Amino acid sequence: MKLATLKTGGRDGALVVVDRAISQAVLADHIAPTLQYALDNWAAVEDKLRKLSDELNAGRAKAFAFTPLGAAAPLPRAYQWADGSAYVNHVELVRKSRGVEMPESFWTDPLMYQGGSDAMLGSHDDILLPDEKHGIDFEAEVTVVTDDVPMGVTPEDARGHIKLIMLVNDVSLRYLAMNELAKGFGFFQCKPASAFSPVAVTPDELGDAWDGGKVHLPLVTHYNGQLFGRPNAGVDMVFDFGTLIAHAARTRTLTAGTIVGSGTVSNKDRSVGSSCIVEKRILEKMETGESKTPFMCFGDRVTIEMFDAAGMSIFGVIDQKVVQYQYKAKAA
Amino acid sequence: MKLATLKTGGRDGALVVVDRAISQAVLADHIAPTLQYALDNWAAVEDKLRKLSDELNAGRAKAFAFTPLGAAAPLPRAYQWADGSAYVNHVELVRKSRGVEMPESFWTDPLMYQGGSDAMLGSHDDILLPDEKHGIDFEAEVTVVTDDVPMGVTPEDARGHIKLIMLVNDVSLRYLAMNELAKGFGFFQCKPASAFSPVAVTPDELGDAWDGGKVHLPLVTHYNGQLFGRPNAGVDMVFDFGTLIAHAARTRTLTAGTIVGSGTVSNKDRSVGSSCIVEKRILEKMETGESKTPFMCFGDRVTIEMFDAAGMSIFGVIDQKVVQYQYKAKAA
Repeated sequence: MKLATLKTGGRDGALVVVDRAISQAVLADHIAPTLQYALDNWAAVEDKLRKLSDELNAGRAKAFAFTPLGAAAPLPRAYQWADGSAYVNHVELVRKSRGVEMPESFWTDPLMYQGGSDAMLGSHDDILLPDEKHGIDFEAEVTVVTDDVPMGVTPEDARGHIKLIMLVNDVSLRYLAMNELAKGFGFFQCKPASAFSPVAVTPDELGDAWDGGKVHLPLVTHYNGQLFGRPNAGVDMVFDFGTLIAHAARTRTLTAGTIVGSGTVSNKDRSVGSSCIVEKRILEKMETGESKTPFMCFGDRVTIEMFDAAGMSIFGVIDQKVVQYQYKAKAA
Repeated sequence: MKLATLKTGGRDGALVVVDRAISQAVLADHIAPTLQYALDNWAAVEDKLRKLSDELNAGRAKAFAFTPLGAAAPLPRAYQWADGSAYVNHVELVRKSRGVEMPESFWTDPLMYQGGSDAMLGSHDDILLPDEKHGIDFEAEVTVVTDDVPMGVTPEDARGHIKLIMLVNDVSLRYLAMNELAKGFGFFQCKPASAFSPVAVTPDELGDAWDGGKVHLPLVTHYNGQLFGRPNAGVDMVFDFGTLIAHAARTRTLTAGTIVGSGTVSNKDRSVGSSCIVEKRILEKMETGESKTPFMCFGDRVTIEMFDAAGMSIFGVIDQKVVQYQYKAKAA
């Protein structure tokens, strides 16, 4: 089942069921007006939504054309965005580039930061930012959405709480990150709003590619029209999503609609490219002594997508351009 | 105007207007069913809510007895909880105790971490935690709630976005914090659910005590029935709430219902006591070479409250006990 949120309606948009090809949709408002409502009441609404999905895919629903341009993030505002960093080889690379040894414990104790979740971008929304000098970067990741997760859940039990899967562009401001890392309170200004894939899908949509709490498919990033990377999200993911959820829930409950991220997808096999500019810059420096690829400038464009074995886009494409923003004070 | 959220109703509770004495309430569901709804539509509902508040305080509303026990957090789940650390003398003290010099920039560049906001506790809810060995501590703070804040807002303009003020007990697990600080990704497991005062109040309720984006009143903490501290929240607050909001909004918008915290209230005048155990332990160690006060154990109780010049409780009391939690796997 594929779900999306139209920008029509209020702040939380309007829930639609989308067909497998991501071309047709049908309103789900008689079952759940918003995706948050659906997640709040998952046990009660799942079967009804699946029935509607079956009807849509069989051509028996009163469908209309679905366009990602009209879609908000599946959760336009969420109660929690907890982003892990499960591809530890990426973390090790970043640390090495700073001349810092990565602690051995990072292979067994997940890194995770609390992200801002109050304003999520739609797949085709502009990346509005005030300053190119902040070191604007994209990060292609896989995320899951949970129902209510009890405190202390085990990694095994946690997998059962995964209701949906999405892609994310976790935009990062690299030069602000340095200062924030030094301060020790985690990321804040260096993490502007993230953008999500047009649709969120139930794990069964991935078939065999969903296994062991991981998505075993390449995550394909293009930058200004050129292939940038296609690392496999199932390879070198040290912590599966069950483990990441259990980490997040160690000392607290997670409320339905919690989004948990994988961190930048990265494979040890460097021939598959990268999912963010900073990794590419580090590899360039290691190879040639110099980072060549600049961070994003206004007008630069990134797309992030994942395809099934038959070449069909599973989540639809994230397609974003960086655009300059300027604050205007209200007239007094 | 004082607002609260009853635990009746759904996950977001039911909005009530509470009288000045915090003893009577009236349902506001015909104006706004929830506090989040009210904040989403503040310009449209504020006058109506104030009119209801006036009627209630004049004894002309159909009121019922208000009990904090029946109240959830004013925002039982919020889209954002951004906690500053504006009492820099406290930060300096903590750093010194670790043998680390605090960077000079901390006096001009606010510390702020992204907190978990998906499950906020009511004022009298138990602090459910799995392990006493984690170093359980309370932190008494002042918080504000904003409407929609544009990216890049100035500190001056930001003050105009402050709609409500609340108290918080920002529970912290000190021994987990050490590991998380070393990892550099900020706080996660060391920050279990926070509890909020029974009512949120509009700034005008504070009269002259709300000035310059600060609350100029003592924040009174009792621990197991003994006075623990009463530092003045308006003294030694290096960054006012306008500055904290502007810091949070530097590279992103803040959605209505964003909660911004002051950090542990702390005065350089040590005779007024502390707002958290760790500060007391550090002061004890500096004075006698030994930290005497242990962190919280199951059964320990903390209360946090603030009084106006006439001795009336402004926000009602946060009154919490630590209780052991254990995960139970669901039967297969």
